[in-house]
Amino acid sequence: MIHRTPPTPRLLAALVLLLAMALPAAALNVDVTQHTLKNGMRVIVIPDRRAPTVTHMVWYRVGSADEPAGKTGLAHYFEHLMFQGTKSIPPAEFSRIIERLGGQDNAFTSFDYTAYYQRIAARHLGRVMAMEAERMQNLQLSQKEVDTEREVIKEERRLRTDNDPRALFGERLRATLYLAHPYRRPVVGWMDDVERLKLKDAMAFYRRHYTPANAIVVIVGDVDPAAALKLAEQHYGKLKNTAEVEERARTAEPPLLTARRVVMRDERIRTPAFQRMWVTPTYRTAKDGAAHAWEVFAEAFGGGSTSLIYRTLVVKEKIATNAGAWYSGEGRDYGEFGVYATPAPGVSPEKLEARIERLLAEVKRDGLPGTDIGHAINVLTAEAVYALDSQFGLARMFGSTLAADGSADDVLKWEERLRAVNTERIKRMLASWALKKHVTGWLLPAADDPGPAKATRQGATKEKETAR
Amino acid sequence: MIHRTPPTPRLLAALVLLLAMALPAAALNVDVTQHTLKNGMRVIVIPDRRAPTVTHMVWYRVGSADEPAGKTGLAHYFEHLMFQGTKSIPPAEFSRIIERLGGQDNAFTSFDYTAYYQRIAARHLGRVMAMEAERMQNLQLSQKEVDTEREVIKEERRLRTDNDPRALFGERLRATLYLAHPYRRPVVGWMDDVERLKLKDAMAFYRRHYTPANAIVVIVGDVDPAAALKLAEQHYGKLKNTAEVEERARTAEPPLLTARRVVMRDERIRTPAFQRMWVTPTYRTAKDGAAHAWEVFAEAFGGGSTSLIYRTLVVKEKIATNAGAWYSGEGRDYGEFGVYATPAPGVSPEKLEARIERLLAEVKRDGLPGTDIGHAINVLTAEAVYALDSQFGLARMFGSTLAADGSADDVLKWEERLRAVNTERIKRMLASWALKKHVTGWLLPAADDPGPAKATRQGATKEKETAR
Repeated sequence: MIHRTPPTPRLLAALVLLLAMALPAAALNVDVTQHTLKNGMRVIVIPDRRAPTVTHMVWYRVGSADEPAGKTGLAHYFEHLMFQGTKSIPPAEFSRIIERLGGQDNAFTSFDYTAYYQRIAARHLGRVMAMEAERMQNLQLSQKEVDTEREVIKEERRLRTDNDPRALFGERLRATLYLAHPYRRPVVGWMDDVERLKLKDAMAFYRRHYTPANAIVVIVGDVDPAAALKLAEQHYGKLKNTAEVEERARTAEPPLLTARRVVMRDERIRTPAFQRMWVTPTYRTAKDGAAHAWEVFAEAFGGGSTSLIYRTLVVKEKIATNAGAWYSGEGRDYGEFGVYATPAPGVSPEKLEARIERLLAEVKRDGLPGTDIGHAINVLTAEAVYALDSQFGLARMFGSTLAADGSADDVLKWEERLRAVNTERIKRMLASWALKKHVTGWLLPAADDPGPAKATRQGATKEKETAR
Repeated sequence: MIHRTPPTPRLLAALVLLLAMALPAAALNVDVTQHTLKNGMRVIVIPDRRAPTVTHMVWYRVGSADEPAGKTGLAHYFEHLMFQGTKSIPPAEFSRIIERLGGQDNAFTSFDYTAYYQRIAARHLGRVMAMEAERMQNLQLSQKEVDTEREVIKEERRLRTDNDPRALFGERLRATLYLAHPYRRPVVGWMDDVERLKLKDAMAFYRRHYTPANAIVVIVGDVDPAAALKLAEQHYGKLKNTAEVEERARTAEPPLLTARRVVMRDERIRTPAFQRMWVTPTYRTAKDGAAHAWEVFAEAFGGGSTSLIYRTLVVKEKIATNAGAWYSGEGRDYGEFGVYATPAPGVSPEKLEARIERLLAEVKRDGLPGTDIGHAINVLTAEAVYALDSQFGLARMFGSTLAADGSADDVLKWEERLRAVNTERIKRMLASWALKKHVTGWLLPAADDPGPAKATRQGATKEKETAR
């Protein structure tokens, strides 16, 4: 799939999530048990007997889009701090204990959620539950730990974003795509905010968001649902809530009025790169299957070397060396559709962009051939089967959907709804697409610049998901 | 001054503030008494005996840039609520009492401050202090009042912004100029946030920010400083703080890396309008007089019909019917420099923009003639004399400077520092100007748009200062 190599890590993450957005439930023979404990914590159990292991994930309904003003990066920062000590677990021992039990653990933070997981022999499930329950309520943080971890985060930001012009560019593009909604902010945070995060901020965040009523535990593996529920009841059921779960107050985007453009030049860039993005509905917000239509459209229009844009620009007209499109519909509030391309040597950015604009206008007007749509649906469902053929993939799919305030049905009925997409449905979706209300980005090789503020190693991040 | 009629109300406000940014202290014979009460509230008294009146202003160090995430508009909303009742003043009676005493009152909110003022016969000074002290601590709000006022604010937003394409455009441009800092958000708030503001939010905001240690009282008028201080001690000195004054945690802008562009089409627009803006230092943040250099440069380059850009584009080359520039340096954290122009009939936006780009590059390289600089300094100081020749102008100048964390010296030494600006100082300032890291805006007449999201009456605001 080299043809869809995305121009930024953010796109990569989007594609990974896109692949994971499938659950051909019948084919996988998935048996989902859902339960809510008295304190409001939700439990999902899915038996998977292929190996004597279990994947245990605790998801919190809090992500970077829930951070207070001036404290971007706090959700991700706090994720790191959760690996410090508790009343009964010595500082930084959490992962070592899991390791000594033969397991692996990690965590990740996104716009809508923060998740912690362990992959371990099934017989240790109770033990890891006890540990997660412990750090949900009895985390102990010192100023020194908070300060030390800040340096780790800053280094993470430098490595992943500030030293990578593509990542920096993606961060700036996203900040321009969204006008008011917090999806515009990088998950890792703006450096200035990270510098100023304090123990006090961390503890306030912990008390407010790390409470059972705001959490979802997902267990996939070699377990009996009744036994797993009993363990969950035992370890999580006894926890008291530390805060009332508040509304996730996020500013809705104001009406779309403008076309925006972001141009960045960097001396580390050799070949111009084009991107154009639109804000779209998501699986959660879309009416009448529009998100599924976007998913299929993105695949057919730009999902690979057989896609319309690739065939047109790269194969037939040879004005681009790469071209594609993607859709990201897993967000709680908004999704994105994007088109990207790299001009062939000698082709000006203006010429390529004008051609893409014409192509988009034609597609919006005429729709796509039914054969392309059928092919796209087959590709997407096949990719979903592959992506979900693991404990981890399954647990992540259900956890991320529920933590972003979606429902298990969004997962269970995904394939059925995807298969219902046809030319008519896509035409309806295309008719509602505000084609000219986009953000366009060009990442270009360096040129003479009379200003002193060249692209330097200092900067700011943005990735969809920031793993520890 | 028709030649500098600015393209948006925001610019108008910026110009008004710009005019007010002068204090030829000696010429006005200003005698400033500064005092800090035991509770931390600051008092400024300036006698002005020309009429038997007094202007009394209470400034709070809280503005829209200090609002919590997802609650834009709260500072301004709360300003409205301060006209509701207290323990001893019946609901909505505040202004009527002032009126019955023959006075006038009002309030305004900006990015960095919220201010309340009365203009009244000097003998009533104690009475208005008692009333301001009362509502600083004993405001009583009901859900009904908060709900009623929400409709007033929404209507204000509709009238001033959503129904005005220039205001909408200015709002979007500002949101794109700033990447991370809260100056990007409209003072009146995004409509979605305003819709969701609650009594609970208002009361939390009140307790946190409306406390004597966060307030400054400015008294200008027919008063004896010792007597005015005694009154301030009596009415404000007794107040207890309701909260510790916290750091104003605002995200600093990440390094400048991109050029941005915002294009908006609207059927109510007949003539294209060009704007380009840069983030600059302010009087408070600039080193070594750079803000004064920006002020003089903006006046000489684009301050009127004798300015370089007007002479070049309008008079000589006739490719524009209007052209100018402005600088806004009164902000706590960042300022702005802007250039605007209107193409002459038959001149394409591209042609005008390219010409402006060349002119800017020449000016950055060569600086400005000394005669233009001398003229600009004379114009600015003369305008300042005029703008400050009133109780209101004086009180506002000192109050806004101190509430944005500047010092009285910033005001008192303004003229001296402005007069020190010369060709060399401007050249140094121009050398540090990242000319290509700007946001450019074009507001254009409507064109065919395949999307459904035309500019409608729904939208979002931005004004520099929102008066009640």
